[in-house]
Amino acid sequence: MKRRIILAALVTALVGAGASFAGEAAPTVAGNAKGIAAVQKNADFVWTLVAAFLVFFMQAGFAMVEAGFTRAKNAVNIIMKNLMDFSIGSLAYWAIGFGLMFGISKTGWFGTSGFFLSDFTRDGDPWTLAFWMFQVVFAATAVTIVSGAMAERTKFSGYLAYSVIISALIYPVYGSWAWGSLYKGAGWLENLGFIDFAGSTVVHSIGGWAALAGAIVLGPRIGKYGPDGRVNAIPGHNIPLAALGVFILWFGWYGFNPGSTTAAVSDIAGIAVNTTLSAAAGTVGALITSWLMFRKPEASMTLNGALAGLVGITAGCANVSPASSVIIGLIAGPLVVLSVVFIDKVLKVDDPVGAISVHGVCGAWGTLAAGLFNTGGTGLKIIGVQLLGIAAAFVWAFGASFIIFKLVNAVIGLRASEKEEMEGLDIGEHGNEAYPDFQLHPSAALKRQ
Amino acid sequence: MKRRIILAALVTALVGAGASFAGEAAPTVAGNAKGIAAVQKNADFVWTLVAAFLVFFMQAGFAMVEAGFTRAKNAVNIIMKNLMDFSIGSLAYWAIGFGLMFGISKTGWFGTSGFFLSDFTRDGDPWTLAFWMFQVVFAATAVTIVSGAMAERTKFSGYLAYSVIISALIYPVYGSWAWGSLYKGAGWLENLGFIDFAGSTVVHSIGGWAALAGAIVLGPRIGKYGPDGRVNAIPGHNIPLAALGVFILWFGWYGFNPGSTTAAVSDIAGIAVNTTLSAAAGTVGALITSWLMFRKPEASMTLNGALAGLVGITAGCANVSPASSVIIGLIAGPLVVLSVVFIDKVLKVDDPVGAISVHGVCGAWGTLAAGLFNTGGTGLKIIGVQLLGIAAAFVWAFGASFIIFKLVNAVIGLRASEKEEMEGLDIGEHGNEAYPDFQLHPSAALKRQ
Amino acid sequence: MKRRIILAALVTALVGAGASFAGEAAPTVAGNAKGIAAVQKNADFVWTLVAAFLVFFMQAGFAMVEAGFTRAKNAVNIIMKNLMDFSIGSLAYWAIGFGLMFGISKTGWFGTSGFFLSDFTRDGDPWTLAFWMFQVVFAATAVTIVSGAMAERTKFSGYLAYSVIISALIYPVYGSWAWGSLYKGAGWLENLGFIDFAGSTVVHSIGGWAALAGAIVLGPRIGKYGPDGRVNAIPGHNIPLAALGVFILWFGWYGFNPGSTTAAVSDIAGIAVNTTLSAAAGTVGALITSWLMFRKPEASMTLNGALAGLVGITAGCANVSPASSVIIGLIAGPLVVLSVVFIDKVLKVDDPVGAISVHGVCGAWGTLAAGLFNTGGTGLKIIGVQLLGIAAAFVWAFGASFIIFKLVNAVIGLRASEKEEMEGLDIGEHGNEAYPDFQLHPSAALKRQ
Repeated sequence: MKRRIILAALVTALVGAGASFAGEAAPTVAGNAKGIAAVQKNADFVWTLVAAFLVFFMQAGFAMVEAGFTRAKNAVNIIMKNLMDFSIGSLAYWAIGFGLMFGISKTGWFGTSGFFLSDFTRDGDPWTLAFWMFQVVFAATAVTIVSGAMAERTKFSGYLAYSVIISALIYPVYGSWAWGSLYKGAGWLENLGFIDFAGSTVVHSIGGWAALAGAIVLGPRIGKYGPDGRVNAIPGHNIPLAALGVFILWFGWYGFNPGSTTAAVSDIAGIAVNTTLSAAAGTVGALITSWLMFRKPEASMTLNGALAGLVGITAGCANVSPASSVIIGLIAGPLVVLSVVFIDKVLKVDDPVGAISVHGVCGAWGTLAAGLFNTGGTGLKIIGVQLLGIAAAFVWAFGASFIIFKLVNAVIGLRASEKEEMEGLDIGEHGNEAYPDFQLHPSAALKRQ
Repeated sequence: MKRRIILAALVTALVGAGASFAGEAAPTVAGNAKGIAAVQKNADFVWTLVAAFLVFFMQAGFAMVEAGFTRAKNAVNIIMKNLMDFSIGSLAYWAIGFGLMFGISKTGWFGTSGFFLSDFTRDGDPWTLAFWMFQVVFAATAVTIVSGAMAERTKFSGYLAYSVIISALIYPVYGSWAWGSLYKGAGWLENLGFIDFAGSTVVHSIGGWAALAGAIVLGPRIGKYGPDGRVNAIPGHNIPLAALGVFILWFGWYGFNPGSTTAAVSDIAGIAVNTTLSAAAGTVGALITSWLMFRKPEASMTLNGALAGLVGITAGCANVSPASSVIIGLIAGPLVVLSVVFIDKVLKVDDPVGAISVHGVCGAWGTLAAGLFNTGGTGLKIIGVQLLGIAAAFVWAFGASFIIFKLVNAVIGLRASEKEEMEGLDIGEHGNEAYPDFQLHPSAALKRQ
Repeated sequence: MKRRIILAALVTALVGAGASFAGEAAPTVAGNAKGIAAVQKNADFVWTLVAAFLVFFMQAGFAMVEAGFTRAKNAVNIIMKNLMDFSIGSLAYWAIGFGLMFGISKTGWFGTSGFFLSDFTRDGDPWTLAFWMFQVVFAATAVTIVSGAMAERTKFSGYLAYSVIISALIYPVYGSWAWGSLYKGAGWLENLGFIDFAGSTVVHSIGGWAALAGAIVLGPRIGKYGPDGRVNAIPGHNIPLAALGVFILWFGWYGFNPGSTTAAVSDIAGIAVNTTLSAAAGTVGALITSWLMFRKPEASMTLNGALAGLVGITAGCANVSPASSVIIGLIAGPLVVLSVVFIDKVLKVDDPVGAISVHGVCGAWGTLAAGLFNTGGTGLKIIGVQLLGIAAAFVWAFGASFIIFKLVNAVIGLRASEKEEMEGLDIGEHGNEAYPDFQLHPSAALKRQ
């Protein structure tokens, strides 16, 4: 019924064209002008929402990457975390986060209106809904990055508690500094000229530094670091699944970066091209680096190289050239390999999927690169602002998350019991097995320690 | 070659703009008005088709969910069913179903024109093709729901026979009652004011009640119900695959619900927001319910909770508020958990994936909710109409399917042989193994009985 | 920041509508006409890019199909090949291929401008970027087809070398013959009236015949053909994954075929309908054929039937009727089954996934069918041109690839060592295991030989 009403309205619009858009009997020049604006706006809705759907689908990509890169005994748990951080996170973002990030801001430090989509309730502007839809999937991306670094040892309830806080508070506050003016807010960082078109820092570094805090507070998985200082590799249980996840993420990134125009404009083409070239170059760069370092072209490093190229181009995708995008990716790929090794072997922080390197480190690189390769011109000033934004993200996301994780640890508990970790979180936390019909190695829990 | 013609036509259109759309030498006000309508129509084509593609992709989601939630020995079979019901079903819908559902209807009970896309052959209006494309993927959704409830024990040829009949007859006839007027038809139910924007009842309950009929006619899997009345759980063999399926379905639902405008209009934003919030709330609701009932947050229940929230908002997505969507999901999530347990343990109907609860029961809830939370106003009259539509769907889909399944059973046979069921339908029906390189538990066929 | 500029520009555009598009103070008829053209162009950008993203996603489909249809011990390798041929290939296409294919062509045999996107650097027309984005994913499709036929025995470095050459040279040169005029080029084949709307020949047959050359130069896998002339089946290790791949490919094909309009026009509807019907008919045709030939409805043949129907309709999707599409698919399905058996058992060419049959043979059939069922009329002339195009593709792609593979074989080496092949390329080439937590059959490497 409602459906017929929408269609009837549209038929009227199409028959009378410009005239009906202006509500007039016969077409006029002014009416046509309004009609043109209305059709463009409709195209903006379509584009922004299609892009939002692609970004939503990245949740599947994160779930597959994180499950594939960890052990079979924890596959249900990692998937439940990914599903729940989106579900709880989007409700928290609806209630609180969106208002803090984009609401009217007097100080430039956070917004104070628009909670529970109340702006829409007030003025009924459907654009608010489209904008919210695009933003909620971005928030969810930042949140879900964290689960990878904390995989295989985190208590489920503790993780859920943290998910609410990053969705409602940590991500939105930084977001308001850099992007607040996109809706009703204002941010001190954007006022300085900070460039982060689609969120190398706002989304990826924030997620990555929160992941770092989580991994530090949790400590490494049992058996990861031997008493003799030996570092044990714990390979992922399903590389095809992880690879599928990377392909899904790459696909979804075409919503993430080009969609950030939130308008159906020709700029989306160049953004898509830059995204493609940087991702391809990141993959090639990581392949070569891993080949040189390990004497074989290693799969998980190369897959992370694709993600590194994608994260690296996210800040500058709308304001660097295609050739610069290739360079940005060619640096991001080797960078992620070196960073994974450094964090694993030198810092001895246990990040099962490399999330800190992919999102935190390459997010910072991408944000710096957006200043260095800016087609609008570079210089000490813009580089300084970019570095300030990078530093502010680290201080805020790492600092706030560290405190929150410590609090969650004290109140609810953040680490699963040793027994649960040994037999797998799937049985201990969920009473499920991921693969009950398959024979797993009897020592799957322990053999690689 | 053809490609160049299309492009040449477009270049002409763009250079001369409004003028060329109206076929005139210089732009005029009337010509511009026609040009505006033409561009809007092009945007409608793009949106409706992109949405149709997303809904098509739900076929992959159903295949992964159903395969993941059943045993390894039947994985090839379930995938073949999903592939074939789309393939046979779309041909049947092309030949017969679409005409019955949307053809010219004198009675309001079914249409009688447009078979084999003959309407298009006659008038050449490309909108007929776009509309058909959107509708065929809806029909396929209703059909494929049934395979889940009938998994692991149905004879392949019997299932194919049924697929033709639901695509060509059962789904289209009910569809014509509720949606016939969207094209050339008319339906008695929509004339009463029945609200089912995207098909909680038309698609999901029809599929769910047909699934119920199939599961009853088939009887339970061997070993599902012990002689002592004990109910045995038969866990799915690949939870990450099932989770991927749920993410794909959620992604595809953004075509299903917002796409049901079949027009590039701003309404799609609110529909997407409502879909997101209800799905998130359904997931949270099911998580909490399963946590309370089973003392652990169970994965398959939570995953079904996401689907429950999606099915629940499908009827009302265009005419309830975001806050109402949260409530609808928060009820759908617990409802699906309770319904699964009730059907499994009390009714003792064996539904391996929970399809009857997700699609049948939550479809009914969603249809009722569309009346209760209708932003256009609620009341006894609209609630009565919604209940009538729900009841009509049950009587028609369950009744007709029950008779058809009994007929198929008598003529072709509906249940696989005991030997096939024990060793797996993959070998018995297809001569394939899903995972020949993996060691399965020797007792995978029997251990959980 | 940049983001705000785009948005500000758009807000201006929307407020002033037609006026602002024309850069005038008040709306005028001429300004409105320009505004209409601008909005249509924006819709073209959206459609073409969304289609490109869908085609990109086909990379995931190919990776899953090829991994699923081969053995567990080579799953990492096949995925690495798919990832790398896109990554290296898209950089090669950026540097060289695009210019050869679409650059200004004096002879009709190849282009000589536009390397490194230099056309865009020169004139800054964003359409160049959109067009490149759409074309690069097509090039990648042709490249990745080859990896399937060469699976399980190819040396990684040799494959990478070949990937560069097909992306930079073999695919683009043929492409310029058939499609050069779509941008700045011209081609001798299109000048004759050759019909290949979306690339049955340009993409699929080129990939398929290159695959044939690769499979011949490599020789069969160890154990595929017994010394007594016996042909051993080597079943794929993960049929659900392969099926997911097929669903992803089908989904992506809705970008491939309808997207080839590269314009938001109503023609996309009929193309989508034809694509659906042919794929469905191909699936049904292959199912029936495999059922008759092997007495059971075999999964891998049926899945390849879906792909056969898709490849078969790709040339004619914009200029045949829906009913003709059903016929085209109904022939493609049986054809792929017969071709797979013929190539395997008679020619004794070892193609692990059936890529030569699906893409080469059905691509040729589709190209012929586009002439036979052409709604614009058929006849000996057009059929002759179609046959000429088919033959030219075979001679060029098979011939050039054969020479290149022989060269690669001589210089780098094309075949993995016997030891690597026996224990699996994953360990030998990459030092990875695809499924380290799962117990594989101890004889997984050998049992089926």
